[in-house]
Amino acid sequence: MSDNSGSGYVTSGQEYSRDTNYITDRITADGSSPWPVEAGRYRLVIARACPWANRAAIVRRLLGLEQAFSMGICGPTHDERSWTFDLDPGGRDPVLGYERLQEAFFARDPEYPRGITVPAMVDVPTKAVVTNDFMQMTLDFSTEWTAHHRDGAPDLYPEHLRDEMDAVMKRVYTEINNGVYRCGFAGSQDAYDAAYERLWTALDWLEERLTTQRYLMGDTITEADVRLFTTLARFDAVYHGHFKANRQKLSEMPALWGYARDLFQTPGFGDTTDFPQIKEHYYVVHADINPTQVIPMGPDTRNWLTPHGREELGGSPFGDGTPPGPVAPGEEVPESHGPGGIGHRPDEERQS
Amino acid sequence: MSDNSGSGYVTSGQEYSRDTNYITDRITADGSSPWPVEAGRYRLVIARACPWANRAAIVRRLLGLEQAFSMGICGPTHDERSWTFDLDPGGRDPVLGYERLQEAFFARDPEYPRGITVPAMVDVPTKAVVTNDFMQMTLDFSTEWTAHHRDGAPDLYPEHLRDEMDAVMKRVYTEINNGVYRCGFAGSQDAYDAAYERLWTALDWLEERLTTQRYLMGDTITEADVRLFTTLARFDAVYHGHFKANRQKLSEMPALWGYARDLFQTPGFGDTTDFPQIKEHYYVVHADINPTQVIPMGPDTRNWLTPHGREELGGSPFGDGTPPGPVAPGEEVPESHGPGGIGHRPDEERQS
Repeated sequence: MSDNSGSGYVTSGQEYSRDTNYITDRITADGSSPWPVEAGRYRLVIARACPWANRAAIVRRLLGLEQAFSMGICGPTHDERSWTFDLDPGGRDPVLGYERLQEAFFARDPEYPRGITVPAMVDVPTKAVVTNDFMQMTLDFSTEWTAHHRDGAPDLYPEHLRDEMDAVMKRVYTEINNGVYRCGFAGSQDAYDAAYERLWTALDWLEERLTTQRYLMGDTITEADVRLFTTLARFDAVYHGHFKANRQKLSEMPALWGYARDLFQTPGFGDTTDFPQIKEHYYVVHADINPTQVIPMGPDTRNWLTPHGREELGGSPFGDGTPPGPVAPGEEVPESHGPGGIGHRPDEERQS
Repeated sequence: MSDNSGSGYVTSGQEYSRDTNYITDRITADGSSPWPVEAGRYRLVIARACPWANRAAIVRRLLGLEQAFSMGICGPTHDERSWTFDLDPGGRDPVLGYERLQEAFFARDPEYPRGITVPAMVDVPTKAVVTNDFMQMTLDFSTEWTAHHRDGAPDLYPEHLRDEMDAVMKRVYTEINNGVYRCGFAGSQDAYDAAYERLWTALDWLEERLTTQRYLMGDTITEADVRLFTTLARFDAVYHGHFKANRQKLSEMPALWGYARDLFQTPGFGDTTDFPQIKEHYYVVHADINPTQVIPMGPDTRNWLTPHGREELGGSPFGDGTPPGPVAPGEEVPESHGPGGIGHRPDEERQS
């Protein structure tokens, strides 16, 4: 996501308000929309840095949809106009030929007035965005793309859990996924104080919930875990300092920290998480709260690989299914970068 | 300190460089300077927020110099011109009658061109600053004001340790006391990266040194401990996030954290430390690295009161001496402020 339609993220005196006005078309299996499920037709565009896009990368991998639709990856930073394909040779996405994701939105609507956000599903024949509605997108991966799921793929949105899941995911979204932004982009002390209380009230609720059960909905992973994970993965590296979500570090909350590492060490989660790109994104793009654009070297993120002990709670991530295989060639996240471990790229790759 | 002679703390592309050009007069016992040691003649002006001024408040109290010279306290924030006496009734220091500390510098030199800094020793009859040389000031409290020390006062600058102490204090100053500022005010990624490495190299050195001995110089507290303490007290509350000194929190370094709490719980240290003023100072004054001026609510600083276990290393803070008595009336730091404990003032007292 990271709507970059304006130059600033903070509005003085105001609570942060996210623009949630997306292109809400859906890709469906039953012919109910103009966009049919069809292998090889669409391209998912993400940025590793973005928590909302990271969700899509995780779900695609958990379900084994790599062969059903390809994935383009924007770089960690963007200018006021757009996310860009600066990581690709020549700075162009090899499938769409674009330098900027904005071009795919303009192919859909030359007057497209809203934020250029990831994740986006792009129709490759027309090179136009089909949808950037990240909430519906991953649910559709689970429910519309079933014919293309790998053998052993988990059911991330089980019918019998949906009512409870929807409530949990809603609270996680408003209070945590978006709650950290509400802290960081608060335009007044009062707005920040209120945001902080909301965030930590919700984190305390999760800490308690996860003390006695392995995953958010019980014994196996679901979409709810994916959605919580991408915020937790960014917590100590970014939100704690940059967004002032600093009552504690994630690593100081025993159940949440064990839970987050359990997921990180599960195929699909840690192997789609790129700490250096995450840090570069937030600290460079949000110049209105970090004017120097200096990227902190800490924390050392090698602690994500330490034993988590969550097996004692029972359950298993994939239930009756199986974990996904190796990451597709070309989609690997580099693992280790210099003395700071997986959280730090060598100096020469970083901005100065 | 916190030289506020300019509007910004960061110079783009540059390493941070502190202006160390002070008024270096000394108050002496032997007639070697125009400023004789004399009870009741001088007034020490500090700000609770400032680590360099906090040193002077601690040493004054450890040595029992409250009756020898009085103490004025500036508020946590200041404008471009000066620290101000905004905490006092009517916004004026009750002894000097000043609204701004700047007036005491101008009484000394109407053209005073440099930073208006705390701590400052002011000659009450002329209302003019004698010295703002914080490095020499506290040593002179120990060595020139001996006739006014309380019974049982510790020797904070023992003759036989001075060579080693001077070397330790020099490294602590350049690498840690000033090293955190070098991280926070780095004007480029390269300057920050280098500052971060220097800081953590020095903190690792101290972690090792303090693993086997209770205090920096051995079994009892000295000036070296005072100088390190005021930086450590600000570490998790400010430097970790605001200055990006974030490899670890202080509370994640066992020896340093035990050591810092040991000192905090010793009379003279914790009772001169005001976390809300500290946080307000840094986050409001450094608008060029925190443009919103929002003050984080975290971390919860009640953990400073937890058992530290350092008694096992032997030694005792005051050696053959005794701890100081209660804080002088009117000089108390408020202890608890709402749900955030000693680290958080109620909302209505804070800026919005």
